[in-house]
Order: sequence, then structure tokens, then C-alpha cells
Amino acid sequence: MIVIGERINSTRKAVKPAVVDRDTAFIQDEARKQAEAGASYIDVNAGALVEGEVETLCWLVETVQAVVDLPCALDSPRPAAIEAAIQVHRGTPLINSINLEKDRVEQLIPLAAQHKAKVIALAMDERIPETIQGRIDCAMKLIDTLNAGGVPDEDIFLDPCILGVGTWDGMTGDHPGVIAIETMKAVRARSEAIHICSGLSNVSFGLPARKLVNRAAMVLFMAAGMDSAICDPLDDALMSIMLAAETVLNRDEFCANYIAASRAERLVV
Amino acid sequence: MIVIGERINSTRKAVKPAVVDRDTAFIQDEARKQAEAGASYIDVNAGALVEGEVETLCWLVETVQAVVDLPCALDSPRPAAIEAAIQVHRGTPLINSINLEKDRVEQLIPLAAQHKAKVIALAMDERIPETIQGRIDCAMKLIDTLNAGGVPDEDIFLDPCILGVGTWDGMTGDHPGVIAIETMKAVRARSEAIHICSGLSNVSFGLPARKLVNRAAMVLFMAAGMDSAICDPLDDALMSIMLAAETVLNRDEFCANYIAASRAERLVV
Repeated sequence: MIVIGERINSTRKAVKPAVVDRDTAFIQDEARKQAEAGASYIDVNAGALVEGEVETLCWLVETVQAVVDLPCALDSPRPAAIEAAIQVHRGTPLINSINLEKDRVEQLIPLAAQHKAKVIALAMDERIPETIQGRIDCAMKLIDTLNAGGVPDEDIFLDPCILGVGTWDGMTGDHPGVIAIETMKAVRARSEAIHICSGLSNVSFGLPARKLVNRAAMVLFMAAGMDSAICDPLDDALMSIMLAAETVLNRDEFCANYIAASRAERLVV
Repeated sequence: MIVIGERINSTRKAVKPAVVDRDTAFIQDEARKQAEAGASYIDVNAGALVEGEVETLCWLVETVQAVVDLPCALDSPRPAAIEAAIQVHRGTPLINSINLEKDRVEQLIPLAAQHKAKVIALAMDERIPETIQGRIDCAMKLIDTLNAGGVPDEDIFLDPCILGVGTWDGMTGDHPGVIAIETMKAVRARSEAIHICSGLSNVSFGLPARKLVNRAAMVLFMAAGMDSAICDPLDDALMSIMLAAETVLNRDEFCANYIAASRAERLVV
């Protein structure tokens, strides 16, 4: 699994002041801990700042990459912020995110293609389709648009836009969990090269014991073809069940990662 | 999910003396606790006794059914023990188990058909096929044989015979986890009516933190169509992730079971 560490996000209460105050030590500690826990990308988000997002995002990228040898996920809805951050980024960045909204398509796809960046692609346009077929159609159209714009399958991280299973009224459209799973299966059937990812925490919105639902969703989505997750790599219970699922799915040769995690006493049983 | 409570098994160290000594209170306590925790069947096994298995199995059925209003899974390889236990069993029993071995086919299928019993059907004959195709072929042949012998799909609990993912050498046949998952998918594609079940604990044989692998396997197998598990309903962590997975799979209307378990403080987060 490719883990995109989500912790350095200015919308999180504990993180915002550190971002506003340019607290290098705090940010670098968060970056290091996520890298040690197995993150492949460090997400950086400065979107909660009323002004100065562009400069702050660039500062976050440089601050993170000064201490970890990992690419960042550049997390902003604003093409100007993404573009500036790409300039200071070392290696291949992951743009977080694009969708089928006209502005994002027109500005972000050329940017991704030009810099050979990877992109998280959300299966939505101005709204999120509420049926299985609508969501799949949206995902397919987005992949077609990315391919036509010069972004190959292997640079796409398709996110089916999971919504809360506890908020569904049982009548409108289809079940949010089933939509996500069927969209993942359809995308995986289309291409083995496309990455499939998901922010996990939305799935449990409105339910008690949310982390438990997130963990179950992680495993169910892996079964549907997901190979990447935007999550907290310091959530040992989540990472433990992810590693366990990889042993059952034959994604961990000789269970080597699982056994190593056990020896390092990282597994939460 | 249909939970088949596995605790009253004479091969378990704590249970054997209670079975040998006909400790009614111990057995009835185990039955009650499993029923309260959500079991739909209580498995009873007297196979560890050198002699007297037939009488003991009958005693177990009567002892259990005196305190819980649930059917039993009659767990024995011996047709004579199964037949005797059916006679004293109230309601529709679940025979545990049949496979394609000649003796079991010839003796147990007519017995199941005659009593309209349900049967756990293991996808194996004298040996367990070590490839995906071999296992699927075996499962299909067993279902065909059961149908021909008068056991309809809805009375079959097909078990794909999971083997330990930690013991695979990477060369012989296919990966044990993948075999189980693909067999479940093929059986589910054949029939929506057939139950698919699995004993979970074999999957983790030889690995550390086995319960974690069992939990991941539970969720992955549910994604592949499993609707029943032979497991310990008192394992709260296992039951918790099972309930969480049902919310994501749309198998828990309005997440009612999940929310109820949360209110009852049964969820292990």
C-alpha cells in the first residue's frame, strides 16, 4: 500500500498554529514520524490560512523535504498554489487534487502533464454523483480527460469520493459504501496501472467508534483494488490491519512486512 | 452475518474436561454467552473423546438446547454421531461437515436430504486442491453433488478451506488467501442463495499476532461474498470489525446493528 500521510494539514486544530507561526521543528517532527511509520508521500495543506497560502505551501514543502527523502502531496484547490509548490518541490510531486470541474481541468491537467506530476483525481464534477453508474461514469470520464491531457494511467490516483455510510437515507441514489466499492472495481477492471486511493475518514461520518469503520473500509477497499490511502500513518491500529490484509491478499511476499512490524512491536492486536 | 459459535469444542483444552465430566453448568454457560454475543448456531464437538463420542454429542445438543433457543452445528466426521445427534436435535441442524470424500458423500448427503438439514461443505476431497482453479472445480463439484442428492443451495454453507498464508512457499500452487477469495467469488457468482462460510483461524497459522490476520481475513472474505463464519462470538474485536464492515457493505440497514453494539459498549475501537 502507498500511504499518503495526512497529518500536516492546516485545517487540523493542532497544526494550524504551527503553520501560521512557521514552527519548523513541529512540522519536521510530523514529517519524520510519518516517514518512519511507512508513509510514501507527505501531504501538505496550507488552505486554512486566510492569506499567504501560496508562500506557506512552498515553505511547507521545503521544510518537509529538508528532513525526509519523500515526495509531497500538494494539497490545494488553487492552481496558483500548486504551481508555485511544484517549483520548489524535489522529485515527482502528487497533486491533491483534480476533478471534473471546468477550472481545475483547464488549469491543473496541463500543469500535471508539463511537470510529469502524479495527480489525485476525485470522481466528481460540480457535485458528487449519487448512484453507482453515475460515479463510475464520472471516474471514467475523468480518466479519459487526464489521458487525453497527457497524464498516463500510472500517474493517476483515482479517488471514488467516499461519503458517509451513516448519513444515507436508504432511498436517495445508491449506498455510499457500495458506490465506492463498485467504482473501485470498475476502475481496476479498466486498468491495472491506475492507482486507486481514498481518504478514509469520510466513510464513518456521523457514526460512533469512527476509527473502527475506517479500518473496516480500508480492508474492504483493498479487496476492491485500492492500493493507496490518504490516512494517518501514526494510527497503529489502522496500519496493523492494513498490513494484515496484505498478507491475505498476497501483497506481502512471505509476509515479510507483517513479520517485521510484529518484531518492531508496531502491531496493535 | 451468520455466526457459528465455535467455543464448545472438545479439542479445546478448557472444554475437554467439561465434556468428559458432563459439566452441564460449564457447557450451558458457554452456550448462553455465545447466544448473547450474537451466535446463530452453537457448534458442538465431542471428537476429542476416545470413546463415547456418539452419546456425548447427543448430550451436548440436549444440554445446549435446554438453555438457548438456537440450532446446533453438529461437528463430527462420523456419520453415526451426526445421525444420532440429529435425532435429539430440535429445529434444523447444521451438519459440520461434508466434503467430496466417498464415504462422507455416500452416508451424509442422504442423511442431510432426509432430515432437510443444512450442511457445511468443505471444498476438498481426499486432499485440498492447491490451485485457484482446482479449489473452484472442487467447490462446484461438491455443490453439484449436494444438489443432485437433494440438498438445495439455500441449505449449503460452502467453506473454501482456507489454509495458512504464512506457510506458503511462494511456488506450490497459488496463494492460500487468493485461492479462498477467488473460490468465494466464484461460488457467489454461481448462486446468491448458497451460504459461504469459513473457519477463520487457519488463515493465520504460523504468523505472529494471529487475531489481527483473522480479523483482516474476516473483512476480506465478507467482500468476496462470505455471509457466515465459524468463529468465537466472544472475540469482541472480531465481532466489532465484522459489524463495521457490514455498515460499509450495506448489510446493516441504517447502521442499526452497529449503533446498537456501540450503545451496548460492545465495540472494541
